[in-house]
Amino acid sequence: MYQCSLERMTNKITTFSKFGDAGNGGITRYTLSEEDVLARNEFIKRMQAIGAIIEVDDVANVYATLPGSDPTAKRIVTGSHSDSVKNGGNYDGILGVMSGMEVLETIAEQNIPHKHPMTVMIFTNEEGSLYPPAMMVSGILCYDYLPETVKGKFKYEDMLQSKSVLDKTTTFGDALEASDFKGDIANRLSPENYKCMFEVHIEQGPILEDAGKDIGIVDCVLGMFNYRLRFYGQAVHAGTFPMQKRQDALFAASQALCYLHEEIDKLGYSDLVYTTGEIECHPNVHTCVPDEVDFCIDVRHESAEVREKVLAIVKSCTEKPWAGCRCHVERMWNRDTVYWDETLVSYVSEAAKESGVSHQVVHSGAGHDAQFVAYMMPTTMIFVQSKDGLSHCEPEYSSPEQCTAGATVLLNAMLKADAE
Amino acid sequence: MYQCSLERMTNKITTFSKFGDAGNGGITRYTLSEEDVLARNEFIKRMQAIGAIIEVDDVANVYATLPGSDPTAKRIVTGSHSDSVKNGGNYDGILGVMSGMEVLETIAEQNIPHKHPMTVMIFTNEEGSLYPPAMMVSGILCYDYLPETVKGKFKYEDMLQSKSVLDKTTTFGDALEASDFKGDIANRLSPENYKCMFEVHIEQGPILEDAGKDIGIVDCVLGMFNYRLRFYGQAVHAGTFPMQKRQDALFAASQALCYLHEEIDKLGYSDLVYTTGEIECHPNVHTCVPDEVDFCIDVRHESAEVREKVLAIVKSCTEKPWAGCRCHVERMWNRDTVYWDETLVSYVSEAAKESGVSHQVVHSGAGHDAQFVAYMMPTTMIFVQSKDGLSHCEPEYSSPEQCTAGATVLLNAMLKADAE
Repeated sequence: MYQCSLERMTNKITTFSKFGDAGNGGITRYTLSEEDVLARNEFIKRMQAIGAIIEVDDVANVYATLPGSDPTAKRIVTGSHSDSVKNGGNYDGILGVMSGMEVLETIAEQNIPHKHPMTVMIFTNEEGSLYPPAMMVSGILCYDYLPETVKGKFKYEDMLQSKSVLDKTTTFGDALEASDFKGDIANRLSPENYKCMFEVHIEQGPILEDAGKDIGIVDCVLGMFNYRLRFYGQAVHAGTFPMQKRQDALFAASQALCYLHEEIDKLGYSDLVYTTGEIECHPNVHTCVPDEVDFCIDVRHESAEVREKVLAIVKSCTEKPWAGCRCHVERMWNRDTVYWDETLVSYVSEAAKESGVSHQVVHSGAGHDAQFVAYMMPTTMIFVQSKDGLSHCEPEYSSPEQCTAGATVLLNAMLKADAE
Repeated sequence: MYQCSLERMTNKITTFSKFGDAGNGGITRYTLSEEDVLARNEFIKRMQAIGAIIEVDDVANVYATLPGSDPTAKRIVTGSHSDSVKNGGNYDGILGVMSGMEVLETIAEQNIPHKHPMTVMIFTNEEGSLYPPAMMVSGILCYDYLPETVKGKFKYEDMLQSKSVLDKTTTFGDALEASDFKGDIANRLSPENYKCMFEVHIEQGPILEDAGKDIGIVDCVLGMFNYRLRFYGQAVHAGTFPMQKRQDALFAASQALCYLHEEIDKLGYSDLVYTTGEIECHPNVHTCVPDEVDFCIDVRHESAEVREKVLAIVKSCTEKPWAGCRCHVERMWNRDTVYWDETLVSYVSEAAKESGVSHQVVHSGAGHDAQFVAYMMPTTMIFVQSKDGLSHCEPEYSSPEQCTAGATVLLNAMLKADAE
């Protein structure tokens, strides 16, 4: 088995953590920002140093490729994104890029023979923190292959019009044109030129840590749905309107939120996750009874049958009297469970075993670029343990040893795919 | 008894409803805006037409005064505000101004003898919709007389720095300087020059309508408190973090909100009003369990003892385990019940009886400019029925007949104070 370098991996982690350093141990690195350009240039500099060919496509994805011995073989690709959420950590996304860099550096340094060209790529705008939605560019790349329930969200022309959440004016298209990274559409990741894809990512949950394992062999991305519950009451004055006659939409929404938690928990599925994380209240002033409140529920489980049971509970909210308010429920989006390519999963599993890395099989609850790529070519993922399960925040952490173990598993799994 | 004119009152309602007409039967008329200046100029034009003297003070309050027969007598004043909330109605505030105009017009037309000068005034920025807080300018006028729990909010220098909620840049001070209404501080309403004050206002609640009465004899403004409840959890990923380990601050806040409603309702006070009308959720994204949520509770009742019982329930929230989150409660402000001057209340009551207007005694649950004035001179209020109890919205309505009845009661009550 080949081993990646702890020293070189540690150096990459230290270096990339500077690009967007927000001063509290984490970063803010919006896609195509000045900070992101620093990270992209560092990527290009290091990959050119080992003789990789650099390409850029029309949506600013960057590809670095080491040629293989067979000039007709398709490329094997790995990668992830370089952007972060606001005040995010030093690992989400960029770890997948650094792991791919480490794989190519190890191949170059140890002169490891391989037939297929080996590519590491940076995906543009995975977080969607500045230009929503999340996973925008993988959505664009894989558009023709996506199921109908998903693709509507990622129409190219619409994506170019996505406005900055900060200045509400600059579009993603503007940012693309202004960058030095707008290249040729012919360079896009596609099944014509690429054989398969691997993505390394932090787990973003506590399961590996609780089990004492460094690496997760990911078998699927959980199916999910997102519904919005809307409550309609009447706006009246806080000081003058008797309680008995009120229709309070926030009280209604709070009751329904508690009801959902209670009823869904009764189903008893310990591996089900659901989140009521976003609420809007109108007019949201202390002197007025709210007339319109809505919140969303995000539900994730591998089994469609389990998701259906939860959905029935969500829909039952329309039949209850919530503080005299009407309740509507609306589907925002849903997706089925995406299973990774079984052969690639077995390569990862074998590579982990042979490398002597502690590991176990896990699901992915979060969405990743790889899950859209999976609709157009064989794809899989490798997780690295997240301390305390934290992500999208400054304390996000995986040790250099764990990160290097992830790169080692990736390297050996890619070589198995190469030898196929 | 003297009677006001239905025709003249109707004409005023129609005219003033045009200044800021938002096209849906209501108005948006921020203080000192172009629309507010139209209303102020109409006021001045009509008051000059009956021979009233116009004065403006340093915070843009406008005063129109008809001299009385005794040159040494203090003025008797009535008035309210000309500004509205966003998409407010045609009555809140401006009805009190129009009622005072109607009183002076009736006195002038019928040549009604009176000893004291009679003044009608426009208060600047009562709503605080553009430049918070509400009741800003009456707070400034009465600053030296306000109780300590209230006055901190209304320091003159701070008020001038209050920023527009729209452009976040223009201050109230800027708006004042740019207006043609910045006059002499010596013109301010004060106990040295004014004997007493009356304010006519719409009820903003359904009690008079339910009782079939046109006019409310207001005896007090309810004491109140406003507390903020803050919940602290942990932000983790919606898709990857097991339910059993979560500390969900929105779930916690929803449980506490329902608990408050349940426990306060158990106290059984039918004349208690409390409102949980404003909520903030962080980070408020569907893929993240919220780590900080806070909401406010606004509680109003005449009796301090009742308010204390409710406060004990609010404070008990800190002792409960809310979805694994910590809960803090914080006092934002409170005020005691303000009782109107008993003699003035009796004048209003007698005037209503003698005018043959249907009426009953009510409390005010809402705050008004008059309640701050009450700390520096004898003051009282008269309510006019609100259709469906609605206010701060476009359907806000009181009939021309009810508005005229209010002006008639005001006229005769002011004459009783004059004859004292």
